[in-house]
Amino acid sequence: MKLSCLGEFGLIQKIARATPNGRGVRLGIGDDAAWVASNSGSCLITADLLLEGIHFDLRWTTLFALGHKTVAVNLSDIAAMGGIASYLILSLGFPADFQSEDVDEFYRGIRSLSVKSGVALVGGDISAAESLVISACVVGYAPYRPVTRTGAKVGNDIYITGTVGDSGLALKLLKSKPSQAAGKAMAYLLSRHTKPMPRLATGALLARGRLATAMIDVSDGLLQDLGHICQASGVGAVIWEETLPLSRAYRALAGNDGIRYALSGGEDYELLFCARRRDRSRIKKMQKRAQVPITRIGRCAPPTEGIRVLDLTGVPRVIRMKGHDHFKLK
Amino acid sequence: MKLSCLGEFGLIQKIARATPNGRGVRLGIGDDAAWVASNSGSCLITADLLLEGIHFDLRWTTLFALGHKTVAVNLSDIAAMGGIASYLILSLGFPADFQSEDVDEFYRGIRSLSVKSGVALVGGDISAAESLVISACVVGYAPYRPVTRTGAKVGNDIYITGTVGDSGLALKLLKSKPSQAAGKAMAYLLSRHTKPMPRLATGALLARGRLATAMIDVSDGLLQDLGHICQASGVGAVIWEETLPLSRAYRALAGNDGIRYALSGGEDYELLFCARRRDRSRIKKMQKRAQVPITRIGRCAPPTEGIRVLDLTGVPRVIRMKGHDHFKLK
Repeated sequence: MKLSCLGEFGLIQKIARATPNGRGVRLGIGDDAAWVASNSGSCLITADLLLEGIHFDLRWTTLFALGHKTVAVNLSDIAAMGGIASYLILSLGFPADFQSEDVDEFYRGIRSLSVKSGVALVGGDISAAESLVISACVVGYAPYRPVTRTGAKVGNDIYITGTVGDSGLALKLLKSKPSQAAGKAMAYLLSRHTKPMPRLATGALLARGRLATAMIDVSDGLLQDLGHICQASGVGAVIWEETLPLSRAYRALAGNDGIRYALSGGEDYELLFCARRRDRSRIKKMQKRAQVPITRIGRCAPPTEGIRVLDLTGVPRVIRMKGHDHFKLK
Repeated sequence: MKLSCLGEFGLIQKIARATPNGRGVRLGIGDDAAWVASNSGSCLITADLLLEGIHFDLRWTTLFALGHKTVAVNLSDIAAMGGIASYLILSLGFPADFQSEDVDEFYRGIRSLSVKSGVALVGGDISAAESLVISACVVGYAPYRPVTRTGAKVGNDIYITGTVGDSGLALKLLKSKPSQAAGKAMAYLLSRHTKPMPRLATGALLARGRLATAMIDVSDGLLQDLGHICQASGVGAVIWEETLPLSRAYRALAGNDGIRYALSGGEDYELLFCARRRDRSRIKKMQKRAQVPITRIGRCAPPTEGIRVLDLTGVPRVIRMKGHDHFKLK
């Protein structure tokens, strides 16, 4: 069977099923990060692959921003477990005619976020390649019990940090209307696309307070990543369209796309989490410490109800596009 | 400056110089693996990138063998620190028309060596790609003090495990005389190229007995990797040509190439290490436990003497090719 039929998530499930549970593995394939025992403690480990032409286009990103994003997407996975990131391992494939100054620029981007986040670059591999290949792995630890995708219960509230859709809309506008790239609103969307900020403090506060019953970072689109929580936890979900947190720039430029990119755009790198109703006031308080808006956007429903998005009048929306799958044909 | 001028090792040095020493980092960029503090112990971390068309050719390797080799090359780095490997993180890019059965075959190869070595696959990333991209990271630990590249002293003996040159000669013959691929000797060389066995037990025994003063695994060619030890330790080296351990298959098929691939072939994944003269008998005894031949091939010289290969009569060989650099033009 071709991978384009099996799909990215079908393939991951297949690999997970065939992988024996090793010694010391508390949580293996299938969450934001692996959770493993180390010789006398426990580690979180996550990895991300960024390929030129697939994940990024050097016409629309600087190498500095690409370095920043490489760190950000990995730290976002650690944040989604409520963990602390410690070490970065970087494997890179560069075309032989690449300029050494461009490599410097990329590493400046790497350092800009890793130093700020207390993460040390400790090693990796370097190779020649046909096009730019970036593979990063982050090792961290879990000072509190890691938050997985499996703990959501029917009746739990659903929350999202920050705003959604900015990154997806930026990419769409870049591709369709590059002339618009000059405006202030577009510059904001673009910064959200090229330089996302991982929500490490928020993730750690949620884990520390045992506030989140399940958590994921939104990389493939809100609905698709919500689907991962629902599947892992055995629940359904209702999302109220009018509560979705949209940036001013998104509202200004979305036009006919409405909330499409907020639901399915991807690369938001915000935290999507579930929590008990009785913890609403604690989450409100926590929000001030985290210094990031946290919005309640729905609740967990019985699994038979699936995932539904309700409009202002309570009518379910017909959802056409659910997010990103690397292998499935669009 | 183009990377083809700067070279792979120039680039690595540049990156290492620009990378601040992070908290908890005992040994960062520039050895076989990083050595870092975890929350209550210490970890070894290593990574390797394998790219189709650069590191492997699917005409000459099965996907099963490629899975095996992916694990082997990473475990070899942990072996070269004297460590124990625990967890494998795998980031893969597959072309969308790749067959799911081929992916299964690759993972069977991954499991064949990882299960045998007590290493658990715990996560990673999967993506679409133009050609096959394999990026692996292994996290392990160091039950004994890790053996770095920096401890060799003038007068130390130099040893190598197993035999050298098999893999490099196999690749050369595959490229130049594919018809020869049928013979028994060629089959042996080929198995050494496609399914190397990491020397984990030997590495750990050397670390436990504090026998190795410096160690590296031979991936870029014996002379080049010896050069890394010499540079890191501030010594020179003399290698006696006639002592180089060559397999029967190598002797049968090397022809005019002589010891060229033994010195510079690469991908041997044997352990090259230095040890004090007074430990000769302890190393001989250890050899039996490790169940792998260990051959003394030279000694560390003053740094001013550089690295010399002496023939039977003690005359230095002129060395033309020193090993593999990903960016330098051949």
